[in-house]
Amino acid sequence: MPADLIISDHRARRDRLRALLADTDRPAEAFVVSDLVNVRYLTGFTGSNGAVLVSADDPSADRICTDGRYLTQVAEQAGDLEPVIARNCLAELAVRARDKGAATIGFEADAVTVAEHSALVDRLADGQRGAAPTLIARTGLVQGLREVKDDGEVELLRRACAVGDQALAAIIDRGVIAAGATEREVARALEWEMYARGADDIAFETIVAAGANSAVPHHRPTGAVLADGDFVKIDFGAVVGGYHSDMTRTYVLSRAADWQREIYDLVATAQAAGRAALRPGADLRGIDDAARSVIVEAGHGEHYVHGLGHGVGLQIHEAPGIGASATGTLPCGAAVTVEPGVYLPGRGGVRIEDTLVVTGPQTGGGTPELLTAADKTFTVI
Amino acid sequence: MPADLIISDHRARRDRLRALLADTDRPAEAFVVSDLVNVRYLTGFTGSNGAVLVSADDPSADRICTDGRYLTQVAEQAGDLEPVIARNCLAELAVRARDKGAATIGFEADAVTVAEHSALVDRLADGQRGAAPTLIARTGLVQGLREVKDDGEVELLRRACAVGDQALAAIIDRGVIAAGATEREVARALEWEMYARGADDIAFETIVAAGANSAVPHHRPTGAVLADGDFVKIDFGAVVGGYHSDMTRTYVLSRAADWQREIYDLVATAQAAGRAALRPGADLRGIDDAARSVIVEAGHGEHYVHGLGHGVGLQIHEAPGIGASATGTLPCGAAVTVEPGVYLPGRGGVRIEDTLVVTGPQTGGGTPELLTAADKTFTVI
Repeated sequence: MPADLIISDHRARRDRLRALLADTDRPAEAFVVSDLVNVRYLTGFTGSNGAVLVSADDPSADRICTDGRYLTQVAEQAGDLEPVIARNCLAELAVRARDKGAATIGFEADAVTVAEHSALVDRLADGQRGAAPTLIARTGLVQGLREVKDDGEVELLRRACAVGDQALAAIIDRGVIAAGATEREVARALEWEMYARGADDIAFETIVAAGANSAVPHHRPTGAVLADGDFVKIDFGAVVGGYHSDMTRTYVLSRAADWQREIYDLVATAQAAGRAALRPGADLRGIDDAARSVIVEAGHGEHYVHGLGHGVGLQIHEAPGIGASATGTLPCGAAVTVEPGVYLPGRGGVRIEDTLVVTGPQTGGGTPELLTAADKTFTVI
Repeated sequence: MPADLIISDHRARRDRLRALLADTDRPAEAFVVSDLVNVRYLTGFTGSNGAVLVSADDPSADRICTDGRYLTQVAEQAGDLEPVIARNCLAELAVRARDKGAATIGFEADAVTVAEHSALVDRLADGQRGAAPTLIARTGLVQGLREVKDDGEVELLRRACAVGDQALAAIIDRGVIAAGATEREVARALEWEMYARGADDIAFETIVAAGANSAVPHHRPTGAVLADGDFVKIDFGAVVGGYHSDMTRTYVLSRAADWQREIYDLVATAQAAGRAALRPGADLRGIDDAARSVIVEAGHGEHYVHGLGHGVGLQIHEAPGIGASATGTLPCGAAVTVEPGVYLPGRGGVRIEDTLVVTGPQTGGGTPELLTAADKTFTVI
């Protein structure tokens, strides 16, 4: 399907948010979304300043706000919404809702800062004869909607992951991952191949970590030179149409030591257990435990210092988080990573990560769709 | 000076913040910095989760907090501070300050969300017999310190700008900016050249806008093909050691029309007026006006839809903002952009932008140091 034919139904997304506004013990007559990623999800608009007003009962009262720099862009990307042009979009849309009679106005408490909130309260009280409207703090509303991907979103995730797979294959074919190269050179080559295959952007700062650096979970590539016998851990992704891929592969250069095979096999076993636990309705902590228990039982629990995975979509890290302190369950349609690791300080580390989409009926059965297809058997390059 | 020899004195920066804590009518005995850029400025730590506790009177009580992923990194980057390892660093450090007896704890109201603040209040009250400490909302404290660059910061800005200059020269030499190329190809080639010259990252999403697209101030590069007679507007930057460069150049392909020369000359005149107005102590709005009045008097005020410039440093946009609604004055040592533009919808637009450091004595005289040296005379490529 050409990218142009992937139609995102932003109106349907706003309607789902609308339904949530009433379905609570703290209903809001209007809701202002100011988190820019959520604004994009609800409207398609990608500018760096914007907000959306969603009415609880009247779709024709929905508005998008941005500033004068984006006059042309907002018309192109969100032409189904009437634009309001202002600098402070949160306040401008809240005042608009107030002036249209809303007595309760919701806002994103996880996006609005204490300072913005304070200014908003002042602005809403300004010039009012009667009582100012009540502000209703809500968290995670749009993030919750975004957990379940629609068909167009899954297709963009597939493409982003395919770009990553192909780029990795290309640098392996070209012999880029080899003794003598620097971490930075490998990272840049990989990014170049992603761009060449249609990535709009890289998904996050590419991690290439060789030798002892591979024991640093989030290592920034340096001028360190790859050497024979090194672990080389590569964690990277592409963005296509706003959607992020995320994959980690770990290789050994030239010759592998026994301890390297051992921890690689351990992480691979844990990763497979984590993937097998991805079922619609599964307890998030249970998924983490499925993988973690493998590593803990092998005596390496203290060397696995992060969660198992995270949702991925318009952001590289989004809901749901899959970790030891997660709560809730995995919805059908979620796109998540599974990425256990074992890191031996000063020696080296292994992480193996895939991005998958949870499919199948709510009860049992579905096999998740693996979006990152690159080989992950133990490989000496 | 090799990058390794640029020493940032993080302790001195924390001491300057410490002095600010007392110097107010709402003093705080301890202050928790949770904005990650401010954390980097005060400590050198670049991880994706962290906060710093700064004591008002006891430097030895300062702490850095991050989570288990960054154990190694925090020791390398901020080895002069004792680390606290936790997930929720803001709350953890505030509780620590409380337990050490602080009755007033400051926080960054422009970084902490309403939801984080609410959780923090609960956490501080938890298990307390007496009164919980008072939270003091402050805004822009560290951002204010960051306005004035120290020598090491200016040197990194120089390098970032030099990388941008050289990369642009390289793609011009290679004939990349030519009819038949796509906007995306030009953008990727420019980014590749920046990386090849030592950029750690690109400073922001590179803008390459050809023909009518050049009338969109913040256009994302597309597959649009450059054609003879087009304006080609290129706005881009490099990051070196965390510091951002920012430059815009606009060219005409093959042959220029009279209207193109006219608006180019207008923008160039306005830009020169803006640069000339950069003096220590100058009123920020006055600087904007120096450039804007040139464009307004030529009848193009409505086609200049943004501010004149912004501070640049660890972030691509930071204090001070230079615009029609700015308040305050320009400090000596500030690094700012000067970037007026004229955009004719459907036809094309011109922006010319430099990054400069404000130098000279507080009263009169100093000529700002121009960091972006690429030629900006009217050029037909």
